[in-house]
Order: sequence, then C-alpha cells, then structure tokens
Amino acid sequence: MNDSPSFASLIDSFSKLPGIGAKTAERMAYAVLEMREEDALEFSSAIANVKQRIHKCPKCGLYTESDLCDICSDHERDRSTLIVVSFPKDAYSFERISGFRGLYHVLGGVISPSKGMGMGELAIDSLLKRIDEDEVKEVVLATNPTLEGETTALFLAKLLDGKDVTVTRLAYGLPMGSSLDYADSLTLSKALEGRKKI
Amino acid sequence: MNDSPSFASLIDSFSKLPGIGAKTAERMAYAVLEMREEDALEFSSAIANVKQRIHKCPKCGLYTESDLCDICSDHERDRSTLIVVSFPKDAYSFERISGFRGLYHVLGGVISPSKGMGMGELAIDSLLKRIDEDEVKEVVLATNPTLEGETTALFLAKLLDGKDVTVTRLAYGLPMGSSLDYADSLTLSKALEGRKKI
Repeated sequence: MNDSPSFASLIDSFSKLPGIGAKTAERMAYAVLEMREEDALEFSSAIANVKQRIHKCPKCGLYTESDLCDICSDHERDRSTLIVVSFPKDAYSFERISGFRGLYHVLGGVISPSKGMGMGELAIDSLLKRIDEDEVKEVVLATNPTLEGETTALFLAKLLDGKDVTVTRLAYGLPMGSSLDYADSLTLSKALEGRKKI
Repeated sequence: MNDSPSFASLIDSFSKLPGIGAKTAERMAYAVLEMREEDALEFSSAIANVKQRIHKCPKCGLYTESDLCDICSDHERDRSTLIVVSFPKDAYSFERISGFRGLYHVLGGVISPSKGMGMGELAIDSLLKRIDEDEVKEVVLATNPTLEGETTALFLAKLLDGKDVTVTRLAYGLPMGSSLDYADSLTLSKALEGRKKI
C-alpha cells in the first residue's frame, strides 16, 4: 500500500488539516478507501465546490455563496454596531451565542511582524470606509487577548481615535466555570482590575 | 455560513470519517476554506484518484494500484504461510512489525449475523482455492480476539479440518508493557493457560 502514489498523496492532503498527524491522516485515507464509491466522489466534489462557490463577502469578509453574506444582507440586523474579528471563525463563535444582532468586520489576521503581517495585509481600509459611509456608532475590537491581538486592537483604537464612533474592547477576566487555582496571574490581575459592583 | 449547501455537504462528508464528530468536521471544512486553492484541488482529486486507481488484489484482497499487490507479486516472500485477516488494515499492522515474510488473505469482515454478515459475504471460497492450488502449509487465523472474531476463526478452523494444512491461531495473553492490575480476568486466565517454560 505504501507504494501507491495516490494513497500517499491523500495521506499528505489529510495531514494538512489542523490537528491531524501522520497516523490519523493514514487512518482517514483508509476510511476513504473503504467508503462507498458515491460517498467518496461526493466528498471529492464537496471540497472542489467549496473552493469554487464560496467567496468572501465584499462588505465584511465573512464566507458566503451569495453576493453579500447572509448577515450583511439581513435588514433586521442592527447596522450601528460592528464586531471586528481577526478571522471568520471568530464571527461564527459570536453567532453561536446569538445574543448579538449587529454586523461584523473580518480583518483577515493580526499585526504580526514575525509572520510578515503588517497593517497593509489587513482589511483596515474597508473598515474605515464602512465607518465613514455607514451608520456605525460602535466598533467592538474582538481580536484575541494575545500579544498580537492586543497590538492589533491598540493600533485600531488609535487609528479610530478621531472618528465619531465609540471603540470598545471585549472584557478580560476569569473564564466561566474555571477555578481561581488555575488562573494565570495576568488573567487574575485583569479580573481584579475589572471588578464590578454586584 | 450555515446557509451554504456546499459547506454543509463538505461537513457531512468529513463526518463520515471514523472518529470525526460534527464539531471536528466543521473545523476541518473551515480549514479547507482557508486552504490555498491548489492544495484544496489536490485534496479533492486525491480522494477521487484513490477510488479510481486503487482496487483489491484479486489474490489476497489487499489494496493495490497494480494487477497483483506488491506482497503477492514479491517472489522473495514465503508462499507456504498465509495470515488470514478480517480487513486490509490488519495485514498492514503485521507488515509494520516486519518479521513476517509470508502472504495474507483478507476475509473482508467477520461472521456477524446481527450485521447480516454470513460466510457468503466473506472471501472464503478464494481462501480454499488458494489452499488447494498453491503450496500453502500453514494458515494463521488472525481475526480479532472478540466474540465475532473467535466465531469466524473457529468456523474456519472446522472448515479447514480435512485439508493438508496446519491451522494456527494468534496467542492470547497479557499485552506487553501492561500491568496485571489492569488485565481483565479472561485475558489473565488465557495468559495463565498459555504459560510457557522460561
């Protein structure tokens, strides 16, 4: 089996998926071999179709099969609040909690000089355009609470300083259901700093 | 995103792989979206190619891209010993330990009335033919030590009773590196029963 180039190429493709090592990739490739012919062909064309039919929404950067994504084109949603995220998956995380009815803006990454990501690589111009042209009142910076995410949030906050828009950042603190024992000291000091009257 | 039929179909395909739940399938589908175009197309055609180019070896039932698999067509291998396995992956497990230089025979499953698998569904006729026509001296029954695997092994042992061939079964006992504390009582009694002089 190890002499088959088709099989080796399939293992190679599976191992490009996140969290899939060589062993799991091989197990998956075997599963494809054992699949019914029509299931495998469906799988093959599903991958090709996803790349052909799905593109980024020209307004917010989320994925869609239509001209505008279903969030941007939903007129029931509140156009005054914009959550700015690094990647589409972050927006989908907010959608799952379903309390938020505003819109999103996907940057496409974070500022990271070591990975060659500067502000030029991020969707910042289109963000400024949306703030100027649409009726945006609040921009929630929702990059990750990591060094790069913080840098990006601070950079954007400065950039938006002169604009007639409220800029907010997600709250820092203890994750729900966690234990103080396991909280790192930075999180704990942020939780103390941000304490609220109950 | 959840309104995209291409995306839903890709999630569906991923969740047909072993050990992949809905959540992981979704994560993988996103990874395909984020992949470079050429990687995704390579992935798509790797799946189609594997199904088109790889078939079962007409002699032993292992997977191959050639007429006969590379094990059956290797004339250096010992044609007198046949390991009978349920699935191709079991044969590849023996190949990894690499001490075995004989041939294989893949049954394609185990006898399991509850799953509608009887002896008619297994490659038994071709096994008998190989024993009659080739120079097979020993048949090692290497089905799993489960109820169904044992039933299949016993059934084959009875079937081969009249033939001029030695029929053996894999040894039962303690797995290497394990602890007596954790051995179930059936394994422990098998280990005691099969004890050897040292």
